[in-house]
Amino acid sequence: MGALMPVTAYTQLCNHVREVALLSSMESTLSWDQETYMPPRALSYRARQMSWLSGKAHAMATGRMMQKLIHQAQMAKLPEAKMTANVRVIAEEFERNARIPNRLIVEESELTAHAKHAWAEARRTSNFNLFAPHLEKLIGIARRKAELWGYADEPYDALLHAYERGTRTRELAGLFAKLKPELTRIAHAAVEKSRKVKPGLLRGRYPLEKQKLLNAEVAASIGFDFQAGRIDTTTHPFCTTLGPRDVRLTTRYDEADFTSSLFGVLHEAGHGLYEQGLPEDDFGLPSGRACSLGIHESQSRLWENHVGRSCSFWQRWLPRAAEYFPHLKKLSINDFLAAIHRAEYSFIRVEADEATYDLHILLRFDIERRLVSGSLAVKDVQEAWNALFQELFGMTPPDAAHGCLQDIHWSMGGLGYFATYTLGNLNAAQLFATARRHKRIATAMDRADYAPLLTWLRENVHARGGALLPGEVMQLATGKATDARHHLRHLHARFVA
Amino acid sequence: MGALMPVTAYTQLCNHVREVALLSSMESTLSWDQETYMPPRALSYRARQMSWLSGKAHAMATGRMMQKLIHQAQMAKLPEAKMTANVRVIAEEFERNARIPNRLIVEESELTAHAKHAWAEARRTSNFNLFAPHLEKLIGIARRKAELWGYADEPYDALLHAYERGTRTRELAGLFAKLKPELTRIAHAAVEKSRKVKPGLLRGRYPLEKQKLLNAEVAASIGFDFQAGRIDTTTHPFCTTLGPRDVRLTTRYDEADFTSSLFGVLHEAGHGLYEQGLPEDDFGLPSGRACSLGIHESQSRLWENHVGRSCSFWQRWLPRAAEYFPHLKKLSINDFLAAIHRAEYSFIRVEADEATYDLHILLRFDIERRLVSGSLAVKDVQEAWNALFQELFGMTPPDAAHGCLQDIHWSMGGLGYFATYTLGNLNAAQLFATARRHKRIATAMDRADYAPLLTWLRENVHARGGALLPGEVMQLATGKATDARHHLRHLHARFVA
Repeated sequence: MGALMPVTAYTQLCNHVREVALLSSMESTLSWDQETYMPPRALSYRARQMSWLSGKAHAMATGRMMQKLIHQAQMAKLPEAKMTANVRVIAEEFERNARIPNRLIVEESELTAHAKHAWAEARRTSNFNLFAPHLEKLIGIARRKAELWGYADEPYDALLHAYERGTRTRELAGLFAKLKPELTRIAHAAVEKSRKVKPGLLRGRYPLEKQKLLNAEVAASIGFDFQAGRIDTTTHPFCTTLGPRDVRLTTRYDEADFTSSLFGVLHEAGHGLYEQGLPEDDFGLPSGRACSLGIHESQSRLWENHVGRSCSFWQRWLPRAAEYFPHLKKLSINDFLAAIHRAEYSFIRVEADEATYDLHILLRFDIERRLVSGSLAVKDVQEAWNALFQELFGMTPPDAAHGCLQDIHWSMGGLGYFATYTLGNLNAAQLFATARRHKRIATAMDRADYAPLLTWLRENVHARGGALLPGEVMQLATGKATDARHHLRHLHARFVA
Repeated sequence: MGALMPVTAYTQLCNHVREVALLSSMESTLSWDQETYMPPRALSYRARQMSWLSGKAHAMATGRMMQKLIHQAQMAKLPEAKMTANVRVIAEEFERNARIPNRLIVEESELTAHAKHAWAEARRTSNFNLFAPHLEKLIGIARRKAELWGYADEPYDALLHAYERGTRTRELAGLFAKLKPELTRIAHAAVEKSRKVKPGLLRGRYPLEKQKLLNAEVAASIGFDFQAGRIDTTTHPFCTTLGPRDVRLTTRYDEADFTSSLFGVLHEAGHGLYEQGLPEDDFGLPSGRACSLGIHESQSRLWENHVGRSCSFWQRWLPRAAEYFPHLKKLSINDFLAAIHRAEYSFIRVEADEATYDLHILLRFDIERRLVSGSLAVKDVQEAWNALFQELFGMTPPDAAHGCLQDIHWSMGGLGYFATYTLGNLNAAQLFATARRHKRIATAMDRADYAPLLTWLRENVHARGGALLPGEVMQLATGKATDARHHLRHLHARFVA
């Protein structure tokens, strides 16, 4: 048998990888159905369907055929840079997977199954001791994986890499160190300023059906394509992609406050616009998927916070909202903005406002890093958490449920994940500031017309897909790697000035 | 390698067959999503997902492994009659599939893809000539398949077998011949009697959301388990099973007539109750699936017509409906029943009422049988259709769209299907009459309590699954094979007496 033509080798690899993506997309579809419409008694059979698909996808993604196809494509002289990048990323991921022995995967999945239960029970009873032994084991596994994967400076690098390829702990720590004093000052000022704002200014009756109509109008107006997506209702909002033209968002409703679902939809639609803007023809390949969690989160935060909480946005949408909810007519735009910019210290991350949110992340990054390096023992987590919380927020969680037990991430083995939320905030501010430098984009935005902004994001972020590193995408789009300056400036302008 | 233990051979075969069912159930789930919620631009990728699944399922169902497992199980001495029956049905289906060469399957699927388009265009323009060449080819394929499958008396037997295992054309023709004179008499009398009933008595405003609530109440009251099923909205109502505890119904709404969706839900819920009543643990095996289309349709017709259009049903539900739709309060129960029992001759089968419906089927059965035997040429179909229509209904379709082009079935290669609708009606009446002989069931029904009826159907029909022949199920449940008498008696009582 002669050598393959270079492009044939590449195409064969791509076909294989696309087939894995096809299987995963079916799993996503079944999972979406499970979260939205599936009747409860269907659960156990659904689990069997999904485990069949994930088993098949895993076997294809890690098998010998994959190895052979990667090798063939690596040997080939490929004519396009995109091809080379795709092969590189596919090979890297294959190698990372290949380094983890099957028994470790099994061990981890058994452990997390138990850990999730234990965590839920520990949180319910606010008893960290119930969760501590599981956390101990989870960190043990995380460390073993880090050793198998390898890292540059410290084991945490390897964990971070799973969510934010190529990002070093040291760089991140540097960024966060710069943020910390500034953020605490801004948060403090914002909370002080907010004392003048009456709480509950927006409370009222907002019928669910009308919220849905308004949300759909808003999502469509920022460019979300309902011919290639939809919005449904779930307890925990999410955005999931079931195919190259099939992006499903979900939100939840508070009948007493329409902004809860609206900002939720803007956030998820930000994720959705990114997914809808990825190169359709490359679906399933690195070049056809999102770059990283930190880039993904930059899109949701950009639309939720920079666009959705801006004055010009509400100059257009408050009058429209008041047509659905007439009691809003008596609210001035300034009162409305004051209400949605109201900041306060709170214990729970997912309920935190824009001004205090990142403090929650800084805390988690610090604790996680010390846990993984071994400089913090599991038994001391609650104490360390509370001490750091006191330092950052000036108050101490009343119990573990409001402190170190509040998040599900660790129980799922998701160490290294939290940092991407703040990276998202930093990237959002930086991308937004860069885009706004174009007069045409800024002028349109002042009229709440976001088409030019979306076009810019499409070209500079979305169309670039995921074969590049997040740092490369930021560099290409803004001329610089991720930088804390823009986010701080934004927060200062909104919450202090 | 020694011989396998008998039960091991059986279990191995079952595991394989269940895996095929698992794949098909995923395809059903994706198909359900496509009909209900999928955004339009997702279509082409969805088609790829589904064709992957059906290709995999087909390969597994027809491959050498399947053949080997069947052979092993056939050689084994199995301890239970159910096991033997399952092996027999699985082997029969495998053989039927094996007799059709792959190129014929490909030829048929290419043909139907074109034929469906041609049919839609022919119907739109009411031009039978556009569809005739396709129908010619479809009948050619049907005849070739019949020859490959083999048959007892005539090729049509082999086609019928695909939908109604073990039923002979000759028997069916005998049944239908007995029906014809009686049915035409009853239909005529019903139409005459209905002239006294003012049309449009129920027209009004029925908000969709209220219809949904009423329909759900009704479906739950007859025993549909919403923990293992749901109701959604589609243009063409259907019932599909996505797993052993996951049965999804759909309906459509007419805001001017609530009975349209309600009877639709009763019909689909009849199918759904059957599916929910099948042996859960045997899901995927012949013993865990529905017996035939004629038995399936008996369940939908029983709940829609025998239960849902009865006086005692509306004695309970008309007052409840009037709470949702207050203008119904001025309608007496007798006027309401007269309205829902109003009969008239019409050209379109799917819009036909209970009194005239079977005449549409008799016509199709006659035409199809002659087409397949060759005694009727395709070019003469329209003329034959119109002549027979005139004989049965006393009127002639104004054009082919209202005549021989109205149904999609032929364009999909579904020759032999139509008869199962009337078989369903006959079986429904026979099962209902048998169940009603139990005083406890009849008394409860008079109070619109259908729990004892459902229990009887569960035991006598549902729990028997699909390893038996439809004739055997009818024999076991009613002591006789399918018989026209009960249906005629029912129609006579409702429409003539």
